[in-house]
Amino acid sequence: MTDEAEWVAVDWGTTNLRVWGVGASGEVVFARTSDQGMSRLQPDAYSGVLAGLLADRFAPTGPPIDVLICGMAGARQGWTEAPYLDAPADLGDLASRSVAPPMPETRWAARILPGICQRQAGAEDVMRGEETQLLGLGTLWAGFDGVVCMPGTHSKWVRLAGRRVERFATAMTGELFEVLRTHSVLRHSLAGPLDGPHRDRGFAAGLDAGAASPQALSATLFKVRAASLLSARPADWCAGFLSGLLIGSEIGAQRDWIGAGEIAIVGDGSLATLYREGVSAIGGKARIVDGTEATLAGLKTARQLR
Amino acid sequence: MTDEAEWVAVDWGTTNLRVWGVGASGEVVFARTSDQGMSRLQPDAYSGVLAGLLADRFAPTGPPIDVLICGMAGARQGWTEAPYLDAPADLGDLASRSVAPPMPETRWAARILPGICQRQAGAEDVMRGEETQLLGLGTLWAGFDGVVCMPGTHSKWVRLAGRRVERFATAMTGELFEVLRTHSVLRHSLAGPLDGPHRDRGFAAGLDAGAASPQALSATLFKVRAASLLSARPADWCAGFLSGLLIGSEIGAQRDWIGAGEIAIVGDGSLATLYREGVSAIGGKARIVDGTEATLAGLKTARQLR
Repeated sequence: MTDEAEWVAVDWGTTNLRVWGVGASGEVVFARTSDQGMSRLQPDAYSGVLAGLLADRFAPTGPPIDVLICGMAGARQGWTEAPYLDAPADLGDLASRSVAPPMPETRWAARILPGICQRQAGAEDVMRGEETQLLGLGTLWAGFDGVVCMPGTHSKWVRLAGRRVERFATAMTGELFEVLRTHSVLRHSLAGPLDGPHRDRGFAAGLDAGAASPQALSATLFKVRAASLLSARPADWCAGFLSGLLIGSEIGAQRDWIGAGEIAIVGDGSLATLYREGVSAIGGKARIVDGTEATLAGLKTARQLR
Repeated sequence: MTDEAEWVAVDWGTTNLRVWGVGASGEVVFARTSDQGMSRLQPDAYSGVLAGLLADRFAPTGPPIDVLICGMAGARQGWTEAPYLDAPADLGDLASRSVAPPMPETRWAARILPGICQRQAGAEDVMRGEETQLLGLGTLWAGFDGVVCMPGTHSKWVRLAGRRVERFATAMTGELFEVLRTHSVLRHSLAGPLDGPHRDRGFAAGLDAGAASPQALSATLFKVRAASLLSARPADWCAGFLSGLLIGSEIGAQRDWIGAGEIAIVGDGSLATLYREGVSAIGGKARIVDGTEATLAGLKTARQLR
């Protein structure tokens, strides 16, 4: 078989998984995605899902193919628990602290990388998947030493020095947007097309308000409703305003973390761009590193460090 | 009929309504509650609900009985819209700015008090129902001039000078607790009995964290989840911690409003007590005024000021 991959990189998240066949020179030979994320799987289902995604890309017999996995597959409620490294943590230890999940077919030699936790009382926090992106960041941005912002459902803010994760914090920004949009009184103001022409101006107004007064978030949130009642703001403006408020508050609260140096935003597409806009709004500088590239680079580097 | 009330006071909220028959000397002759709040009623249903609650307490004929109503019945989506007063607002104007809803039976002369709005761009806000409690506060606490905190689903913070509402803000604290408890990832940490023995300690820890860093709310919220994952905190501790975080952040953000003077907390039962604890935690002083008494006193005063 030509173009055969040498090993397989896997990002197994809560809602999706992505697999990449990686060739001898590190090139991606094939890529596949699936909706069989952790939240849909019982532990005994993982091996079958994985084998099903790989079987037609490899010869049926031969020496075991390495499969290196990061993400929620290693959570307690996932496939096999890969116990957390404790922060401060050396990302060079990810591979040596990986665990082998049960794999009935000997064709595959699977290992799951651990996440990182922070146990100090009052600063408790956890990550799974982002630690691999952080390791990849060190490859994609050689010599990086500073603050990393990883936007998402649960955004991470990380103080990274080379391969050392010094401390980190999670902000529930993406999830707050979703639960408020769907379940709170604000849903009345967001009933309608959310991607209309007023969204950008709403976002800019929300970003300003959130960044200026991050401490007032529970109060400024209600401005979404009041602005639609009193100023007839349309749904797209309100959606932009809510998003801007939440992102602005998140970034404004990190003012003391964001120093003079350039920060790294590890993320995808328009969300990463919105965060860069937010960092600029408080006078910071940021460079975007593609989230998928960071994951893949992290899995490659972890494998080299075995 | 002995003990006949002279007029009727009504607090018509989103989920409930309460009616009080008031005697010639201001005494409450009877009190009733109903679950026919605004959210369950079409406009043409209000008059029948009201008449049904009153008919057996009054003689079937006679001069019209005054019924004075505050709350969401006056919202645009309520019975008949009672347009907002604009803040800064004089609470002495509530009665003169009331509106008469359509009432087929001439036995009742109903009027609905207006709410108050704040239209300044960036400070847009609305209240309906609380303005009547604020008028009542002036009767129950003669000479009050200062900050009023009104805890609830949507807490209000008001700068009140006598009968003048200078400015106000709404914090979505109660609703945030509910949507996060029910719909976010934090629900996993709050699955279990929430009123257990660890709740008070969780509340105290959350209150400290929220009041110390109100700007970090979207990040400290995730500590609920991390604390249960890493420190095996039980559901009652997590519920107390989440409540404390939200209330602490709300109060901490009002630090500049809470000066040296005693503030008034207008509210009911244990929630008012938790807020008083929160105000003490940041070095403030607060006195609790019962929310129901404030509503009733406000309706009485509004009627006298007709």
